[in-house]
Amino acid sequence: RSDGSRLWSTIVETAAFGGTPAGGINRLTLSPEDGHVRDWFRDACAAAGLTVTVDALGTQYALRPGRDMSRKPIAFGSHLDTQPTGGKFDGVLGVLAGLEVIRSLNDAGIETEAPLLVVNWTNEEGSRFAPAMMASAAYAGDFTTDDILAKRDAAGITVADALDAIGYRGSEPVGAQAIGAFVELHIEQGPVLEAEGKTIGVVEGGQGIMWFDGVITGFESHAGTTPMPRRRDALLALSEFALAAETIALAHAPSAVATIGEAAILAPSRNVVPGRVAFTLDVRDPRATTLDAMESALRDAAADISGRRRLEIALTRIWRKEPVPFDPAIVAAIDAAAESLGHSRRRIISGAGHDACNLAAKVPAAMIFVPCKDGISHNESESATQADCAAGADVLLQTVLRLANA
Amino acid sequence: RSDGSRLWSTIVETAAFGGTPAGGINRLTLSPEDGHVRDWFRDACAAAGLTVTVDALGTQYALRPGRDMSRKPIAFGSHLDTQPTGGKFDGVLGVLAGLEVIRSLNDAGIETEAPLLVVNWTNEEGSRFAPAMMASAAYAGDFTTDDILAKRDAAGITVADALDAIGYRGSEPVGAQAIGAFVELHIEQGPVLEAEGKTIGVVEGGQGIMWFDGVITGFESHAGTTPMPRRRDALLALSEFALAAETIALAHAPSAVATIGEAAILAPSRNVVPGRVAFTLDVRDPRATTLDAMESALRDAAADISGRRRLEIALTRIWRKEPVPFDPAIVAAIDAAAESLGHSRRRIISGAGHDACNLAAKVPAAMIFVPCKDGISHNESESATQADCAAGADVLLQTVLRLANA
Ligand SMILES: NC(=O)NCCC(=O)O
Ligand SMILES: NC(=O)NCCC(=O)O
Repeated sequence: RSDGSRLWSTIVETAAFGGTPAGGINRLTLSPEDGHVRDWFRDACAAAGLTVTVDALGTQYALRPGRDMSRKPIAFGSHLDTQPTGGKFDGVLGVLAGLEVIRSLNDAGIETEAPLLVVNWTNEEGSRFAPAMMASAAYAGDFTTDDILAKRDAAGITVADALDAIGYRGSEPVGAQAIGAFVELHIEQGPVLEAEGKTIGVVEGGQGIMWFDGVITGFESHAGTTPMPRRRDALLALSEFALAAETIALAHAPSAVATIGEAAILAPSRNVVPGRVAFTLDVRDPRATTLDAMESALRDAAADISGRRRLEIALTRIWRKEPVPFDPAIVAAIDAAAESLGHSRRRIISGAGHDACNLAAKVPAAMIFVPCKDGISHNESESATQADCAAGADVLLQTVLRLANA
Repeated sequence: RSDGSRLWSTIVETAAFGGTPAGGINRLTLSPEDGHVRDWFRDACAAAGLTVTVDALGTQYALRPGRDMSRKPIAFGSHLDTQPTGGKFDGVLGVLAGLEVIRSLNDAGIETEAPLLVVNWTNEEGSRFAPAMMASAAYAGDFTTDDILAKRDAAGITVADALDAIGYRGSEPVGAQAIGAFVELHIEQGPVLEAEGKTIGVVEGGQGIMWFDGVITGFESHAGTTPMPRRRDALLALSEFALAAETIALAHAPSAVATIGEAAILAPSRNVVPGRVAFTLDVRDPRATTLDAMESALRDAAADISGRRRLEIALTRIWRKEPVPFDPAIVAAIDAAAESLGHSRRRIISGAGHDACNLAAKVPAAMIFVPCKDGISHNESESATQADCAAGADVLLQTVLRLANA
């Protein structure tokens, strides 16, 4: 068993890096605050006897030797970056529970056959740089390292420059660190486990995700003198499109979701009809065919609105992550570990994207969920109990032992 | 008659202060660029023999003595500030035509009975600081000088600090400069004169304006895991409200207009359901009763949306400018001047707010309009012909002579 109160104090301690007055965390990837929590994690891993390396995209790997060094390490972890209005558990729990697993094994003097590897993946959130989970995607071969290094945030700063700014552009090539299997503990970020009173979610896969960039180009004009029918108002077009996206998601209820998370008027002014609006669109469903249907319905809606309102709507899909099935053997190992610990559990599909979803393309991978309060995440009030976090860490520990000693 | 080509070259020359690549002007009030054009105007007035003073809100007054110094000056002018994506004529034409009137009188050696006064009012546009036309409103007694000095832009800078930053906090108390009557030449900013082939608009009044600040407070949550029916999406609420405002304006067609010119998501992120949106709303109609009816319909719509979507919509009216009738004698003088010059003309109501609308509460005032291309304004492509600008300046000159020598 892991030490639940030691795990909890690391969650409290690291929440100070980017902590907000409302009790959340604002620790965008590769920000100074992200640099500080990375330094903390590096030092804590070194103090636990691990060898820490950093790859060319800033991902941190902390290795504990095994008896059989010819075996690839059993890896586990998550991410330490957060949303701008993020909580204290999303990603953080998985990394700190990984550290806790190592500390517990050290305390108990337990060696494993395979080596163990705790990982902190760069930019899981995707808030500052798109797409989300970009370092694990590069690890899995979905992008080249150079592709990712060249991505820019809203201020035009590249990933390369952001890594250099906090001293986390490592020397190890991306993908060079061997991984034999990957297990990720995470809060559910949804309402299912809590509603059903289950402690552990045995995650069988992740749903598909599409990200779009949109630009609506109408025409700026005077708010006082331009008759309503003559207007080419980019914000009204966005309004219709946002409501159409909601309707399209509801047409594929209950699974599908669609979200416009960013929307900005170019050169906004109280008495100017908005001429140009840029926005983002996030669309998800567990079935690839539903993603296809939603994309086509969204494009039809855009064409209808742009035709009626005499303006242009450009919709560019910048990312599509197919639905991911996790490895049945790892899923079974998690289930067995939860059962051996006597935790109530259920099979579940992840609504959020996770680094494990990228790893799954390259190595056997699966995930462990624990409940979070009211299913709330990506919010400063995100919350999980100490008991559930400890239960998740215990299941992680037992799963890792099964995999490493098999 | 004025010198149309000299007037045109001052328009071209001053367009360089804040000129944009797209051929417009970005010269927000009290910006460095506004400081530069003010310096130019001060020097040009001084070179034309005028005495230039500046009041505590930065308004510039350039006085030409009359034969009868006991009479209050006949004032004319407009503003030199622009929208962030503004054009070369809105406001500028009225000030530079005022300078041209003085130059033409100087060239012809004409003295007037009453003194003449060319005015450049501070912050007509209202884009950086709300409300619009604030200096003329303070002159007319609608606000105290201290009220206005304390207003803040989006960056939190006060009018007082912005005035100091460009050295334009003058020593003259606001309202101390006597004005006997006020005439403002302006582009129409709407499509009527062009459509009817008329050169001069004899403006009989201005429509009413209401400005609102709105804040929608929903709840941030995860874009991948929050089922559509559980969401409290502030952007979807804004979308419904924006479309409701359009419908409400159309219900009072053809005169009423409603515009959401600014809208910003707090802490936007691609994979976060928007939790809070701030926006502005501009509502206009020539009848006060229609303004009342629209405000009440807008508040009903906000209540309906906030109830259905389980979020809060706060709508604060920060400004209401009643519809303004101009002075019949000045309107008649403009009409007579246009007739004497042989220009086609029509009576018209202004869709935009103007400093003359504020002055009208304190002194006899009216306006002269000239056509602009396609009725477009508050856009970098705003355009007017040299001939129409010259015709407007001629009507201004003849109107001023009538008033000053009456
Ligand atoms: N777990 C998580 O919130 N990941 C961010 C990527 C996503 O939007 O699903
Ligand atoms: N003339 C003009 O565009 N004034 C700005 C104030 C308004 O929005 O009407």
